[in-house]
Amino acid sequence: MHKVLVGQSGGPTAAINATLAGVIRGAQDAGLELCGMRYGIEGYLAGKSLDLTHALEQPVENALLRATPASWLGSCRFKLPDPTSTAPANKNFYEHAFTRFAEDKIDAVLYLGGNDSMDTIAKLSRWGAANGSPIRFVGVPKTIDNDLVGTDHTPGYGSAAKFVATSVAELALDASVYDLKSVLVVEIMGRDAGWLTASAALAGAAGSRGADLILLPEVALDLDALIGRVQALLEQQNTVVIALSEGVRDASGTLFAEKSSETGTTRDQFGHLAAYSGAGRWLSATLKERLGVKSRAVELSTLQRCASHLASQRDLEESFALGQRGVTCALEGATGVMCAVERQSSAPYSATFTQVDVQTVANLVKCVPDAWIASDGMGVSQEFMDYAAPLIEGEAPNLFVAGVPAHAQPVELA
Amino acid sequence: MHKVLVGQSGGPTAAINATLAGVIRGAQDAGLELCGMRYGIEGYLAGKSLDLTHALEQPVENALLRATPASWLGSCRFKLPDPTSTAPANKNFYEHAFTRFAEDKIDAVLYLGGNDSMDTIAKLSRWGAANGSPIRFVGVPKTIDNDLVGTDHTPGYGSAAKFVATSVAELALDASVYDLKSVLVVEIMGRDAGWLTASAALAGAAGSRGADLILLPEVALDLDALIGRVQALLEQQNTVVIALSEGVRDASGTLFAEKSSETGTTRDQFGHLAAYSGAGRWLSATLKERLGVKSRAVELSTLQRCASHLASQRDLEESFALGQRGVTCALEGATGVMCAVERQSSAPYSATFTQVDVQTVANLVKCVPDAWIASDGMGVSQEFMDYAAPLIEGEAPNLFVAGVPAHAQPVELA
Repeated sequence: MHKVLVGQSGGPTAAINATLAGVIRGAQDAGLELCGMRYGIEGYLAGKSLDLTHALEQPVENALLRATPASWLGSCRFKLPDPTSTAPANKNFYEHAFTRFAEDKIDAVLYLGGNDSMDTIAKLSRWGAANGSPIRFVGVPKTIDNDLVGTDHTPGYGSAAKFVATSVAELALDASVYDLKSVLVVEIMGRDAGWLTASAALAGAAGSRGADLILLPEVALDLDALIGRVQALLEQQNTVVIALSEGVRDASGTLFAEKSSETGTTRDQFGHLAAYSGAGRWLSATLKERLGVKSRAVELSTLQRCASHLASQRDLEESFALGQRGVTCALEGATGVMCAVERQSSAPYSATFTQVDVQTVANLVKCVPDAWIASDGMGVSQEFMDYAAPLIEGEAPNLFVAGVPAHAQPVELA
Repeated sequence: MHKVLVGQSGGPTAAINATLAGVIRGAQDAGLELCGMRYGIEGYLAGKSLDLTHALEQPVENALLRATPASWLGSCRFKLPDPTSTAPANKNFYEHAFTRFAEDKIDAVLYLGGNDSMDTIAKLSRWGAANGSPIRFVGVPKTIDNDLVGTDHTPGYGSAAKFVATSVAELALDASVYDLKSVLVVEIMGRDAGWLTASAALAGAAGSRGADLILLPEVALDLDALIGRVQALLEQQNTVVIALSEGVRDASGTLFAEKSSETGTTRDQFGHLAAYSGAGRWLSATLKERLGVKSRAVELSTLQRCASHLASQRDLEESFALGQRGVTCALEGATGVMCAVERQSSAPYSATFTQVDVQTVANLVKCVPDAWIASDGMGVSQEFMDYAAPLIEGEAPNLFVAGVPAHAQPVELA
């Protein structure tokens, strides 16, 4: 094996560049050539790539990439056609792709991303296997949503969870300064799985105020029950803090985000609603009207996925190591796999790295298990806390220059 | 002088507790008794106070308070009546207040806050002077808006500006990952003055992407000119980042926030619009419609005023020192004054502390000077950068426990 192609795909995170830094280091250590896809598989197939063989060879450059949010190589949201179909368009697509790989003398493709990216690896490896290609296809997970099966958790989740927990602790103090009854609704990302919203429970880990109620997409929300619960809490305390997933639905399956008049219903190629935000403002306005109290919604928005200045050290270390692991997997001849984390113990935390068949991962969603959700559906259990707490541990080093974090310089096309 | 009364008022910040920590330390060093107002002057006059004489005597407790956001003592938004009026209600109010001060044997009142809080100090000192009271009234400034006259800058501004600059740098990377034309609008607090929005210009200080356009409330926004400018930028680059003040108005003086259907027009006691947010979503939707590009609005919301985990070390040091200075001022017999910062030099930064007549401060707004705004009204000058850069320097120490910042324990009423 001589040459690896690497790409980043899907939504940005605070940790996906740490994984890329691990791939770069792994390839350099193994003396491999490394080619980068600009803007994921979509950009690569349109001719956009760059030589990374000698990129960031200085340790400080590699460290700076680890501390840089978003996707250094650029990203895409591009759904590959069905590789098992005999339709000419599908066949043409894969023939073009494998011709491009051959032209670039690619021996292995590493793709860093979430659910949709594992779908890409699953499809490329399926086509490759069916057509006798020797190219190895390896996925390396990344998603703040933590919703991939086959791995204990996903890189990017711990850093986003640390930002959520810290912000909820700070916002709860901010919301409690006046001597009046009020509600704070913090809207957190996670369309189908509530892992990130659940991490608001960690806000209280150091003795600060946390979230009083945690509303996950796994639980159909009974608005009247919620209002009753908020009212009861307001009889005991001035301020009620609610951590609300953007993906919360009512019993009929309707998203609260869709109840908000501002939210469009455009869907992307993967069938996902393009804009989810608005659930927090809708709930805040509803509570204000129904309970006659001050209410404010704060949307953590894209801040929660790019706050590298507050990244979890454990997350960045694991993300880097999984990038190195991806190179090792390919060197060992694995294909059609996703690198994964297997937890050995939570206290003290220990984990090993492994790989799983990517066909068993793609397009599935891992939700927060029922047993980890409070019986009233408005909180999480100690089991969740024990699971999530180690993932936000440690503060990643930042290089501050002139008072702001320094980032890796923008990538240039070759 | 034996006993000091201290209160916090107005909106929370990441630095006002550092000032309180400075007052506590100053009073302890001088052997003074210290009483705290719970929920500002409003709570105090309703009988809510606590003894702070021996509060947080351990250095680590005092340090923890410096790193805790919001207002540890609680806050209020309460406008005092006119002390020069002979109306019975006004007279009764002040007689009640000064009776309370006398009952508690108060020799000096320190009030930490922004414009409206300096109005409180101005009125109390005016009544006191007219009625022969020996009580000293001293204001200590605090506002993320940086809009107080009489001081080079205000405590709380540097930390909020550091959060804004860091977040804009991270969000700009996040917004640039896809190979398509897009606009990011970051909505930043500041109702009448653009100091905090202008700090987005510091995002690029360490070589990262910053904001392309900065829109301040000081400049009437010409929407067509802005659209033309964004269009021209999109011909050269994929992503345009706009830092937008929540207080931006058009040429007729109408707030862009008011153009948004969601925003109410309720006004508070000081005549301020209660809810300003929405300008960013309105502008984002307008640019999407007019230019046919992807557009997203991110509202930094209350996060920008309570992100203690990213506080400016210089800001916290100055905030603490100004709290100590407030005690010294009172000990020296000053009354009707606001403690202030006088800058000696920007590079290297040096400043001294002083005090100014609070009557010359109250109810005035210091705006970003014309000379510091770019000629097209969509950016800031080097003079602004030289002014603001030293204020975000240094990273304040945080005590992280279990992955989240530890905060001072909630205050208990005596």
